[in-house]
Amino acid sequence: MSKVMIIGAGGVGRVVAFKCAQHPEVFSEILLASRTKSKCDVIAADAKAATGHQHITTAAVDAENVPELAALIRSFGPKLVIHVALPYQDLTIMEACLETGVHYLDTANYEPKDEAKFEYSWQWAYQDRFKEKGIMAVLGCGFDPGATSVFTARAAKHFFDEMHYLDIVDCNAGDHGKAFATNFNPEINIREITQNGRYYENGKWVEIPPHSEMKVLNYPDIGPKDSYLIYHEELESLVKNFPSLKRARFWMTFGQEYLTHLRVIQNIGMARIDPVKYKGVDIIPLEFLKAVLPDPGELGENYTGQTSIGCRIRGIKNGKEQTYYIWNNCSHQAAFDETGAQGVSYTTGVPAMIGAMMVLTGEWSGTGVFNVEEFNPDPFLDKMNEYGLPWHEEVGVDLEF
Amino acid sequence: MSKVMIIGAGGVGRVVAFKCAQHPEVFSEILLASRTKSKCDVIAADAKAATGHQHITTAAVDAENVPELAALIRSFGPKLVIHVALPYQDLTIMEACLETGVHYLDTANYEPKDEAKFEYSWQWAYQDRFKEKGIMAVLGCGFDPGATSVFTARAAKHFFDEMHYLDIVDCNAGDHGKAFATNFNPEINIREITQNGRYYENGKWVEIPPHSEMKVLNYPDIGPKDSYLIYHEELESLVKNFPSLKRARFWMTFGQEYLTHLRVIQNIGMARIDPVKYKGVDIIPLEFLKAVLPDPGELGENYTGQTSIGCRIRGIKNGKEQTYYIWNNCSHQAAFDETGAQGVSYTTGVPAMIGAMMVLTGEWSGTGVFNVEEFNPDPFLDKMNEYGLPWHEEVGVDLEF
Repeated sequence: MSKVMIIGAGGVGRVVAFKCAQHPEVFSEILLASRTKSKCDVIAADAKAATGHQHITTAAVDAENVPELAALIRSFGPKLVIHVALPYQDLTIMEACLETGVHYLDTANYEPKDEAKFEYSWQWAYQDRFKEKGIMAVLGCGFDPGATSVFTARAAKHFFDEMHYLDIVDCNAGDHGKAFATNFNPEINIREITQNGRYYENGKWVEIPPHSEMKVLNYPDIGPKDSYLIYHEELESLVKNFPSLKRARFWMTFGQEYLTHLRVIQNIGMARIDPVKYKGVDIIPLEFLKAVLPDPGELGENYTGQTSIGCRIRGIKNGKEQTYYIWNNCSHQAAFDETGAQGVSYTTGVPAMIGAMMVLTGEWSGTGVFNVEEFNPDPFLDKMNEYGLPWHEEVGVDLEF
Repeated sequence: MSKVMIIGAGGVGRVVAFKCAQHPEVFSEILLASRTKSKCDVIAADAKAATGHQHITTAAVDAENVPELAALIRSFGPKLVIHVALPYQDLTIMEACLETGVHYLDTANYEPKDEAKFEYSWQWAYQDRFKEKGIMAVLGCGFDPGATSVFTARAAKHFFDEMHYLDIVDCNAGDHGKAFATNFNPEINIREITQNGRYYENGKWVEIPPHSEMKVLNYPDIGPKDSYLIYHEELESLVKNFPSLKRARFWMTFGQEYLTHLRVIQNIGMARIDPVKYKGVDIIPLEFLKAVLPDPGELGENYTGQTSIGCRIRGIKNGKEQTYYIWNNCSHQAAFDETGAQGVSYTTGVPAMIGAMMVLTGEWSGTGVFNVEEFNPDPFLDKMNEYGLPWHEEVGVDLEF
């Protein structure tokens, strides 16, 4: 029975609040905080009505203000802070956790506002301070990173003596009926996917122009989809934690229309993250675009189809070549019916709740800063099956690579 | 020998200032005014250096502020105001001209800021007041409207007893080397071309979805280009002033990439003209997009290729069917070499200067509000040949319609 504090009231915050509220035996008291308290109030009321949880409160907090965060943490007294606000805010929330001696969990690595740079260096640098304080920081516990990292840990534990080739494949075959929308924070989404592609091979990182490598891959229950090699942050920690990997890549599906929209957004300057002076105000085009695009939290209602995310791995078991595919498919409509949020928010929020459960129940323990593949994958994967993200695996499968 | 005041320091303002400065025998003193005086100063210095004109001064003015405009007009004492700033500002400048008893000339019809509505009603409503004051307002004296209207007047005067079918064809076969840019104020440009198409037939206006009617047309010295039926403001006055017309249409060339960019700009909400609250400021997405897109005034340097704009007319002469095509081709590079502005600014600015010359020399006279096809086309067309926009005509030509 523990108190948990959730920061962030977007689609993922909604899912985390709902899923924590379904388990009062672990999350006995929940505080949901974000910049805008009214957003938290709506989610809290919905989660109470859906689950009957009696102890969900809300607060306003500026997640970039360490003293304000620390004061709120002290007054509520949680055992763990689940951070599902913006990646810009990872470091201030980690600082507040250090100051108050409270565990930390997030779903996306820190990135500076003025630079599209995805790497764990900033957060890994907190290793010694978290150790000294006797607390843990769990990094990247959404779906990808998160579930994909745990999938890889399961493969390593049960199916391979040596993993050589890892391909993470992320398909969203959903249809939200809008001409263009992003499935999570458009600012973060566009920063991420307009970057150069990058993958790991033979000890080195190889960089390629954005969307310059495509493969048609088949996804279970979905079929063939154009899949593009992009960089994704879990690659960095996975090749460090599984040094037998010779190559690690990440593939994401995009339709032609989506890529056309992205290309134009870049061409017209609306993906810029440097400020433009307008009416005397410094405005970052990409941030303003976010204000104009559909709110990803409101895509759920008419969202059909499903996501399919998994890991395809080739390596050696008992001296013989082995192939393995582990994946989850998630229906946008089922996610919406349960939580009022679409599948992309759902697949990120459920693993965050399960990770929090692992920490609070002691299944995952230690002091310092961790990526989730460093823990025992089995209890986490059991909970995925139980709590809405059932997964499947196949050995000896055609990996298409 | 007259004083002229030019309002607007964009690409067209630059061309008008240069072209007026080339003719001190008509424009003995020139005042160039705009919101930002420093932009006027640059143009004035360049125009003086290029032409040797000794009397070009500059001033700051808010073109939406009638008392401020009237005070500036009074202190300078021009015979005519050439308005080449924004179409939103037509009415305030007309008011200031009425207040001070000074002739008025513009290149684009008034449109309200919050509505994309192109029609002359607002400006035609000034008819009686301009008459009573004993001054004239010359509306739409750029290229289209402007030169195209005078082309049509020439056709009516010399080549037809009855004009039946008018197609204005506007091709920009230039290449500015940018992924996407508009050739004049992007805000005005995008408002104009994202509207429904509209044309006149048998006494009625017919409306069609944007870019839903395309014809491949051949342009002299250029070749075949995809040309789309769009609405353009001169159609309104031409069918009124030439009532024998059974049909009047306007065609503009767009490349596939340009249309793709436009479509995406609309899809992502950046063509919206209603305000979005951002950082406490009301921001109109299309206005902000303008701040991010390349400045059309700076496209000139590497702009290659040419424009070709003209009128294709079918009707009756001496009881027999007659066809007629009149057009001008303008080279972007030649325009830039002469004035530092590209061809689209040049083709708009030169007719504005010539129209001003017509008024100041008395070739065009009268009191009230006029569209340019109501005047004698011949002296205007002579000056076009002389001052940088030579035109060509052909009788009995295949009109492709």
